[in-house]
Amino acid sequence: EAGEFSLINRIERIACGNHIKPASVTEGIGDDAAVIEKDSRTFFLITADALIENIHFRQDYISPYTLGRKALAVNISDIAAMAGNPRYYLVCLSVPATTPVNWVKDLYKGMNHIAKQYSLFLIGGDTVAAEKTIAVSVTVIGEAKKGSVIFRHGAQPGDLIFVTGLPGDSALGLEILEKGFSKSLKNSLIKKHLCPVPRIQAGQALARQNIASSMIDTSDGIIPDLIHILRQSRVGARIFLSNFTLSKAYRKTCGDNAEDGFFYHALYGGEDYELLFTTDRKKTAAIKALETELDIPITCIGEITDKKGNLDIINASGNSVSFEKKGFAHFK
Amino acid sequence: EAGEFSLINRIERIACGNHIKPASVTEGIGDDAAVIEKDSRTFFLITADALIENIHFRQDYISPYTLGRKALAVNISDIAAMAGNPRYYLVCLSVPATTPVNWVKDLYKGMNHIAKQYSLFLIGGDTVAAEKTIAVSVTVIGEAKKGSVIFRHGAQPGDLIFVTGLPGDSALGLEILEKGFSKSLKNSLIKKHLCPVPRIQAGQALARQNIASSMIDTSDGIIPDLIHILRQSRVGARIFLSNFTLSKAYRKTCGDNAEDGFFYHALYGGEDYELLFTTDRKKTAAIKALETELDIPITCIGEITDKKGNLDIINASGNSVSFEKKGFAHFK
Repeated sequence: EAGEFSLINRIERIACGNHIKPASVTEGIGDDAAVIEKDSRTFFLITADALIENIHFRQDYISPYTLGRKALAVNISDIAAMAGNPRYYLVCLSVPATTPVNWVKDLYKGMNHIAKQYSLFLIGGDTVAAEKTIAVSVTVIGEAKKGSVIFRHGAQPGDLIFVTGLPGDSALGLEILEKGFSKSLKNSLIKKHLCPVPRIQAGQALARQNIASSMIDTSDGIIPDLIHILRQSRVGARIFLSNFTLSKAYRKTCGDNAEDGFFYHALYGGEDYELLFTTDRKKTAAIKALETELDIPITCIGEITDKKGNLDIINASGNSVSFEKKGFAHFK
Repeated sequence: EAGEFSLINRIERIACGNHIKPASVTEGIGDDAAVIEKDSRTFFLITADALIENIHFRQDYISPYTLGRKALAVNISDIAAMAGNPRYYLVCLSVPATTPVNWVKDLYKGMNHIAKQYSLFLIGGDTVAAEKTIAVSVTVIGEAKKGSVIFRHGAQPGDLIFVTGLPGDSALGLEILEKGFSKSLKNSLIKKHLCPVPRIQAGQALARQNIASSMIDTSDGIIPDLIHILRQSRVGARIFLSNFTLSKAYRKTCGDNAEDGFFYHALYGGEDYELLFTTDRKKTAAIKALETELDIPITCIGEITDKKGNLDIINASGNSVSFEKKGFAHFK
């Protein structure tokens, strides 16, 4: 019996692995989006992700409008992580037959809201009945110039590791929602969880200015997502907890005690949908300028090492710390 | 309260309708697949459809292997209906955490089987947990030369209406499964329902030989699907029941009484995934040749008229018959 989804994802690859990859496929499974030949100068970037009721969200804390918005946002974030420009989307929505028409209308309004903001156009999909629970599967198609796609592979020993935004807030927001303390979007942690802002502008700027050597969006959490970069770039990393910038709400919620455990949500909390990227040290000034230009925090949290498969998390006292938590299991 | 999915589909369009269609989108929602600019000579065709447990299938009569096969087949069929060549696919699979790993493996093996047969390559997607029921959402991306895509619009008054295969078998197969009479794939009706064969070769030949003026795949049933062609081509049609060729199994199951009701499953039964197309009368000889070449029945079942929105179904006695059933409601 299973439920071991990292395993299942591997099975998926095994089951489909006896095909020869067509020349038109630059990247298939294994990055934030597939990279497919469009024309001699352009790639299509294609990604698909689903939100499942009572697994990824509960109706008692998310409105259909916000759910529609988020279902599209998390897919746009995958395009951002490849430095692409989102263009089109398709939606497979399944809802119980008892769902009010206005509920469905509101979900599409939420999608429409963010689609307009990021200039995406709805080109297809399906609305079908479900037995009991809601599932929203979204496919987003983006474009990028051939030279400017940023992959998970590409990190070099000596590169610095940066993250946009203030990590961990989304996971704290989810805890507040799950515990029933609040569902207000005025709470910045809840807002971060329910209304993620895909970093399309930042992703494109990092490519245009040739800053990022590798990139991923933080959907699983900084450490689990960094591990994808390390594995695919065949490198290691050192993370410095004292470098982290955390939000006022994070510090208030977690007690600002600066002990190692205090950083748990920042390191392992998922669904921030920020950009985690590596860069040559010489680009630090360019990143500072970008931080000002885009008005979002971009923080150096560590460096890439040549110790392949090795990840050190170092606290303010200079000691290696270990979190015996889920993220590491994936790496082994 | 809803569950009125034709309505919901319209809402979906309304909610997303206040966007300006980009020049790169030749067809968005409203055909079997979206038609998007690839390069100066080629279109991408993109379609997404979901199969939901206990709505579109029940685990007690479909194996994971056959489910995987079908989930991909029905999407390939949409590419066939545009006369395209399927290239890539993405899968969002959600399964309860208690699902055995081998179940998931078998589903991907079924997908892999048909993917190999039609030369598709898996480029992405996600396997996630579900609370109780399985959902399989598939996105298929195909290609077609710009001149050779066949749309739902394009039927002309005087055109003949053809359908590949023998209609109605899939719906009868579903009834046998639902009533628990059999689940054997040796039963041809059940096989037609569980293992549809997308008509890629036929679709491409109809385009290459410039035969079809409009086309759709029969997922909802001949009449409901013909109505899509009529609406989008702004024409009417006459269907002649005496023209229909039905399978031996159909005739045996339905009693071969040749009364009007006998044709119900052929007219309204869904999920045959055959091609329904219109053509200039002068192409009849070419279609006969194609029927021999491909070794599948291609039957003329009626003709297109200039009576916009008017659909006559004429029985062997020359009388108009009316089925007070679901299909007509969609047309009004």
